[in-house]
Amino acid sequence: MTTTWETALTASGRILLILAIALLVRFLLRRAITRLVTRLGRESERRRQRAETIGSVLRSASSVALLGTAGMMALSEVGVQLGPLVASAGIVGVALGFGARNVVMDILSGMFMLLEDQYGVGDRIDVGEATGTVLEIGMRVTTLRGDNGEVWYVRNGEIKRVGNLSQGWATASLDVEVAPDTDLARVRKTITVSALELSRTSPFDELLWEPLESPVEVLGLDAVSSDAMVVKVVAKTQPGKALVVERELRWRVKLALEAAGIEPPLPTRGAEVSGPGAR
Amino acid sequence: MTTTWETALTASGRILLILAIALLVRFLLRRAITRLVTRLGRESERRRQRAETIGSVLRSASSVALLGTAGMMALSEVGVQLGPLVASAGIVGVALGFGARNVVMDILSGMFMLLEDQYGVGDRIDVGEATGTVLEIGMRVTTLRGDNGEVWYVRNGEIKRVGNLSQGWATASLDVEVAPDTDLARVRKTITVSALELSRTSPFDELLWEPLESPVEVLGLDAVSSDAMVVKVVAKTQPGKALVVERELRWRVKLALEAAGIEPPLPTRGAEVSGPGAR
Amino acid sequence: MTTTWETALTASGRILLILAIALLVRFLLRRAITRLVTRLGRESERRRQRAETIGSVLRSASSVALLGTAGMMALSEVGVQLGPLVASAGIVGVALGFGARNVVMDILSGMFMLLEDQYGVGDRIDVGEATGTVLEIGMRVTTLRGDNGEVWYVRNGEIKRVGNLSQGWATASLDVEVAPDTDLARVRKTITVSALELSRTSPFDELLWEPLESPVEVLGLDAVSSDAMVVKVVAKTQPGKALVVERELRWRVKLALEAAGIEPPLPTRGAEVSGPGAR
Amino acid sequence: MTTTWETALTASGRILLILAIALLVRFLLRRAITRLVTRLGRESERRRQRAETIGSVLRSASSVALLGTAGMMALSEVGVQLGPLVASAGIVGVALGFGARNVVMDILSGMFMLLEDQYGVGDRIDVGEATGTVLEIGMRVTTLRGDNGEVWYVRNGEIKRVGNLSQGWATASLDVEVAPDTDLARVRKTITVSALELSRTSPFDELLWEPLESPVEVLGLDAVSSDAMVVKVVAKTQPGKALVVERELRWRVKLALEAAGIEPPLPTRGAEVSGPGAR
Amino acid sequence: MTTTWETALTASGRILLILAIALLVRFLLRRAITRLVTRLGRESERRRQRAETIGSVLRSASSVALLGTAGMMALSEVGVQLGPLVASAGIVGVALGFGARNVVMDILSGMFMLLEDQYGVGDRIDVGEATGTVLEIGMRVTTLRGDNGEVWYVRNGEIKRVGNLSQGWATASLDVEVAPDTDLARVRKTITVSALELSRTSPFDELLWEPLESPVEVLGLDAVSSDAMVVKVVAKTQPGKALVVERELRWRVKLALEAAGIEPPLPTRGAEVSGPGAR
Amino acid sequence: MTTTWETALTASGRILLILAIALLVRFLLRRAITRLVTRLGRESERRRQRAETIGSVLRSASSVALLGTAGMMALSEVGVQLGPLVASAGIVGVALGFGARNVVMDILSGMFMLLEDQYGVGDRIDVGEATGTVLEIGMRVTTLRGDNGEVWYVRNGEIKRVGNLSQGWATASLDVEVAPDTDLARVRKTITVSALELSRTSPFDELLWEPLESPVEVLGLDAVSSDAMVVKVVAKTQPGKALVVERELRWRVKLALEAAGIEPPLPTRGAEVSGPGAR
Amino acid sequence: MTTTWETALTASGRILLILAIALLVRFLLRRAITRLVTRLGRESERRRQRAETIGSVLRSASSVALLGTAGMMALSEVGVQLGPLVASAGIVGVALGFGARNVVMDILSGMFMLLEDQYGVGDRIDVGEATGTVLEIGMRVTTLRGDNGEVWYVRNGEIKRVGNLSQGWATASLDVEVAPDTDLARVRKTITVSALELSRTSPFDELLWEPLESPVEVLGLDAVSSDAMVVKVVAKTQPGKALVVERELRWRVKLALEAAGIEPPLPTRGAEVSGPGAR
Repeated sequence: MTTTWETALTASGRILLILAIALLVRFLLRRAITRLVTRLGRESERRRQRAETIGSVLRSASSVALLGTAGMMALSEVGVQLGPLVASAGIVGVALGFGARNVVMDILSGMFMLLEDQYGVGDRIDVGEATGTVLEIGMRVTTLRGDNGEVWYVRNGEIKRVGNLSQGWATASLDVEVAPDTDLARVRKTITVSALELSRTSPFDELLWEPLESPVEVLGLDAVSSDAMVVKVVAKTQPGKALVVERELRWRVKLALEAAGIEPPLPTRGAEVSGPGAR
Repeated sequence: MTTTWETALTASGRILLILAIALLVRFLLRRAITRLVTRLGRESERRRQRAETIGSVLRSASSVALLGTAGMMALSEVGVQLGPLVASAGIVGVALGFGARNVVMDILSGMFMLLEDQYGVGDRIDVGEATGTVLEIGMRVTTLRGDNGEVWYVRNGEIKRVGNLSQGWATASLDVEVAPDTDLARVRKTITVSALELSRTSPFDELLWEPLESPVEVLGLDAVSSDAMVVKVVAKTQPGKALVVERELRWRVKLALEAAGIEPPLPTRGAEVSGPGAR
Repeated sequence: MTTTWETALTASGRILLILAIALLVRFLLRRAITRLVTRLGRESERRRQRAETIGSVLRSASSVALLGTAGMMALSEVGVQLGPLVASAGIVGVALGFGARNVVMDILSGMFMLLEDQYGVGDRIDVGEATGTVLEIGMRVTTLRGDNGEVWYVRNGEIKRVGNLSQGWATASLDVEVAPDTDLARVRKTITVSALELSRTSPFDELLWEPLESPVEVLGLDAVSSDAMVVKVVAKTQPGKALVVERELRWRVKLALEAAGIEPPLPTRGAEVSGPGAR
Repeated sequence: MTTTWETALTASGRILLILAIALLVRFLLRRAITRLVTRLGRESERRRQRAETIGSVLRSASSVALLGTAGMMALSEVGVQLGPLVASAGIVGVALGFGARNVVMDILSGMFMLLEDQYGVGDRIDVGEATGTVLEIGMRVTTLRGDNGEVWYVRNGEIKRVGNLSQGWATASLDVEVAPDTDLARVRKTITVSALELSRTSPFDELLWEPLESPVEVLGLDAVSSDAMVVKVVAKTQPGKALVVERELRWRVKLALEAAGIEPPLPTRGAEVSGPGAR
Repeated sequence: MTTTWETALTASGRILLILAIALLVRFLLRRAITRLVTRLGRESERRRQRAETIGSVLRSASSVALLGTAGMMALSEVGVQLGPLVASAGIVGVALGFGARNVVMDILSGMFMLLEDQYGVGDRIDVGEATGTVLEIGMRVTTLRGDNGEVWYVRNGEIKRVGNLSQGWATASLDVEVAPDTDLARVRKTITVSALELSRTSPFDELLWEPLESPVEVLGLDAVSSDAMVVKVVAKTQPGKALVVERELRWRVKLALEAAGIEPPLPTRGAEVSGPGAR
Repeated sequence: MTTTWETALTASGRILLILAIALLVRFLLRRAITRLVTRLGRESERRRQRAETIGSVLRSASSVALLGTAGMMALSEVGVQLGPLVASAGIVGVALGFGARNVVMDILSGMFMLLEDQYGVGDRIDVGEATGTVLEIGMRVTTLRGDNGEVWYVRNGEIKRVGNLSQGWATASLDVEVAPDTDLARVRKTITVSALELSRTSPFDELLWEPLESPVEVLGLDAVSSDAMVVKVVAKTQPGKALVVERELRWRVKLALEAAGIEPPLPTRGAEVSGPGAR
Repeated sequence: MTTTWETALTASGRILLILAIALLVRFLLRRAITRLVTRLGRESERRRQRAETIGSVLRSASSVALLGTAGMMALSEVGVQLGPLVASAGIVGVALGFGARNVVMDILSGMFMLLEDQYGVGDRIDVGEATGTVLEIGMRVTTLRGDNGEVWYVRNGEIKRVGNLSQGWATASLDVEVAPDTDLARVRKTITVSALELSRTSPFDELLWEPLESPVEVLGLDAVSSDAMVVKVVAKTQPGKALVVERELRWRVKLALEAAGIEPPLPTRGAEVSGPGAR
């Protein structure tokens, strides 16, 4: 009789021990989560709110898991056989785990992207599946506003590489075609002068990345054929402004070349040789 | 003899304990499911019904799992050896789990898409595998009506990114080609005037996104060749109306350019230089 | 000696208990299977037979599994050590499970497609791997008759999205090309008149989806070049009849345009300008 | 001492029981395999032999597995500890299982394709990886004779969809081009007459699927350009004979159109307008 | 004290039993491996050597596994607790198994390809990743000599389908173009006569598959345009000789057509109509 | 009573033993980590800091794992049943493990790439997903600055092969086209002379890899047609300077050929033969 | 008291047994590793060093694993409960194993490629992801120098097939185009004579594979059109020298054809018929 009584006593002792440890681990885990949340939400109010949401989900989940486990251990101490329970939980866990793999992957990827600060709301990014301006960085999906106005929901785990088009400059690039017997130095000079004017005109002075020094670089001869010579011209611009600068520059260079009497490439069809004369 | 009797008593005590806990957990689970259902079905009657269906399936499944487990634990307490049962269940579970992975993935993806409210019935969406108007958001598949009248059933787990074409505006885009020696400013003005007229005409005033201010933006010179200059024109429209606006604008710009005497691009074949004269 | 006898008695009691529970669960499972079969076979006699086959396979499989498990548990109660048996079964199960994953996936996908009623025998569907008329919806494969007479066997699990071309309408679409200086309003009117006639002629009145109101919609100008203007015309038709309507409409519009004196697009080669005159 | 003797007795009793059950299960399994073999080999002698081979492999494998398990259980009853053996077998089983997954998948797919009777020796099939005439349906690979004489060995598990070109008809399809100002009705009639003749000539009367009624269907106008009108013509033929019929029909339609004075499409290059006159 | 001694006796008895069974199983396994090796190496000396190598690897591996397991069981019988050992072995096994999956797959695929005799050294095969003449069929890779002299090492498991170009015939195929107003019968006859001559000339009589009867088949009209008619001609040749026959046949048919006065297709550019006259 | 006391004593002895071993293993592990960190951070201050971060993460993780395990073993020694805890941990571990696979893979790949020193900050690399200059080599992602100014975040595990464009030379390559009847030796000489001049001009003397000996190699005739002969010219340059050299060389070779009277290729359109004369 | 003492004695005996076996297995494993290393490093000093590195890694890893296991078994014998330790190790092992799968795969593939001697340092190889000269064969990656000077790091496990371009010959291949009415025999003879000269000129006599007999093979007529006949010429060369020989041969054949008065193909544009006359 004594052993039974003693064992019972020890059992209650062990249950107390289990509870104590569970509460301690829960406290440590919650503190760690709080730190993570603080770190994730450092930057803006909106981000702080989102980090808070993640934190509260993590806190609930870990509490349920911890207390559930502690409860099962207590049951085990009073002699209940937990084999079937553990087996059921295992089967359900594995079955869900297989299917939920993508969800876990999406969320983990999302957390890492936040921690690594790959992009923020308002950045223009290229995530392979879609390109656009970030509307929202969610736990499982990133929301973008595409260039034509559509809204893209992209799963974070499907993003293998992110191109952030708002961190740094953009490049306007022009292929200027002239007749094959033109002097390269004159072309170079005409383009440079034309570009300098552009860099002093509003609003293009603010769209260029380095307007003062060398707004535009004439790289040289990209191709030579019997019809034309192609001269490559590039300019660094503010992010997202490459096309605007490119279009303006294209028009100005065209006018400048005409003014300088530099001939366009030969037409690609014979009879037009007489055509331009007829114009 | 006493120990056997005592153990039996304890066993029945444990069985009662198991039942009590099972019922408690079942109650908590059902309440959580009910909350989820309420949250999922917040918005419309139809959605509420679907959420109810999901809820009732979840409730039955969790009840069967819980009570089955509790039953096995009770059997275990009366001394039945459950090894073979657990092993059988495990093998069946793993075998089904492998094959059912896609089904679980589809359903989980579906629930998340509902929770994140990525699209609703009636939205036009692009899910990669198909594009069309959402007819129904199902547990496992999303049903779309394609543009040519066909019906698409797309598994939710196969949707890696969703483009919602009904949240925001759409973009009508026009490449206007003119002769290479045309003045860009005149082209720009002619197009702008023509677009303003369009934006005051019914029904186009309602199809444009911002009809009052700048209905159409003439972006500038997209390409220059010896045959033609390409001027890019874009307009923000109501979602799904880009093509309608684009077609009308194309016709109006064509007429306006002709009226203003702005020449079309050179024909791409020589002999036609005489051709148009013969027209 | 007494304990041995007593344990034997308890053992036989447990075996009886095991059998009773096994039979009860078997009864419940069979009833659930019967309900599923009834639901699957609700619609036609043929489908009912197929559902019956699935049902009988499921019934046999679950009986074998249940009674095998119960038998093993009984053996376990009389003291036979089942470790090796369980281990063997586990290894065979996992090895088969890995390889059979696709088969299970195919069958589960097939059952869901039946339950969701994605398509029926006789529907024309597009399953990505092949397009054709459904001949048979099997447990593991769907059989289609392709458009050229060939028979396609497509595994259900490989079908990521189904396009059902028989639920709703189809779209006949025509690109009408005219000379670049034609009046759009006249083209529009000529096409509309021509389409109205078509919609009143048998058998086309029955092939169109909405023959009475607006059988054909002239969408507007899809492209303008120096050679031609392209006018887009669409018509909703009965499913599978788009090409028939399209071909007839193409012929009628051609005749109507000629009759109205609307010129065809300029030939794309110069010398032919004189060619048509020579005709 | 007595208990030891008694346990030994019980142990030998258990061993007998194990053997009896193993033999019973083996008998049942072999009978099931025999039934499967009979069902698989129902149709031809060759197929029966192949099914016999599969059957004998299955029988050996299941006997080895069953008796090995029974032997291990017997060892276990005499007190040998089987833990290490079970663990070794498990590791070897899992390691092989991972690598052998494809082999199991190939064999299972092969058995299902046989059971579903997707194709037989001599059928022309399209399995994606290769197209040709089936030489042999093997356990793991299907052997095809390609159209150029090469032999293809395709793993059954890699076959995602099979197109059987020998079950049903084939479709001969012709695009007849005529001058853009031709009368469609005359073209239609000329082709139909020409096709009727073909359908009465040997050997084409036997190559067509429905030679008597409408051997060839003139579908209508597939395209209109300033150079040509394209009329689509199709005919159902015996499987594998579409190209033969197509080539003959192409020649006959060409002759018939010339005889009827229906002009060919305009040449796509100008100067040839004078060319044909010079011919 | 007696029980300890008795148990020890039983333990040594069990160890002897374990050793006896291990040796028996080893003997059976080695005999099975020897049979497999004999079957694999049936055909040539070289293949026999390779099979011997595989056999000796399999024999060593199975001996190590068997005797290791037997040793562990013996240790277990003398009371050593093997839990940690089994766990370590399991972890190492699983970790290696994951990574080694491809290696096992390559070797299994190689063995099956040998057993199924898909190709031999010297055959020309197409394995998707590369095409060439087989230099060596290895356990893990197949070595090919490519057509340009390079050596390809292809992993057996990456081979999804093999096209053996040396089992059967090859097909030489010619598209003969003639003027659009040529008589098909004359073309057919000219080609046939020309092909008969070829089939009687050395070395082409031995390169053709059926030189005597119908060496070449004129299939008929493959295409008709306003420029040319395309007549398809095919010939069965010895494997690997299709291009040789094709080139010779192309030259002979060209000469024969010129000799018969059958005109070539019209040149695709106008001005050349005068060109050939000027030649 | 004595046994209980004795067992307790042994238990405390075992707990001490467990703690001692845990601390020893922890010490060894930390030392190994420190060595790894030292090896990783050998080269630069920045890299040392990053290695320190990895090291501190590894140290914390291993300490938590080790002490957690030791704690559980101690609990186990005082009689607490750990089955439920182990099972919970296992389920959570597997579930996270599935989803975190990519993260672990990214980090392991990153560590190996650091150890193998595949690239450093400032190198231009091609990682398939993106090409650019390395900004940062992170634990999970590598950050690149693309050529147009955008920033790429590429997951290390997605990098299957790295092309380092900064280790060694780059190749400038030119296709020089001349008229088909030009003498190859003269072309060769003209180009070589022109290249020698370039190699003596600043800054190109420093951009070439081997400016002194043979700065440029004229490889020979790459193609011959009735319009042109293509001569291939290559030059080794400093990494990243190939395009600069190429453009300058293109211009110089063009001038040199003109000066030497070597004719350009024939224009590809007839009428231009008179065109150049008219220039 | 006696049993405790006896068990302790047995325990220490078992611990000694465990250590003895661990040391024996360690000795055998190390000897096996030494043999593998010797075999891997047979060929060159550099390779021997690499093999030594692999060997020392393998030796450390296996020693740690063996002694760790033996230590745990000893702990187990003194009564420490190892369940938690085994479980922790298992979870960490599986989690790392999932992520490290690629690393293990890379290393295993690398070892097999070394054993199979697929390529050596200095060989030019094509591994799909990149092509170049092997700089280093590493444990996890193979380093190549690409043709343009860049350095490629390719993971061994990503290499599905290797093409070794340095084992055997290379093939120079030329498509010689002549006018459509040229005599094939004359062309054949002219090319052969020209090739014989090349094969006797230094350095080409050493670049050809079989310079003495038939340095170049004129395969025959590859295509006939109304503009040109294409004659295919091939030559076997030393590996890596195909392009050099090809370019020289192209130039010599061009000169020889001109010298023999064999006309080039007709120009593809009409007006050039007069062009060449004007040249």
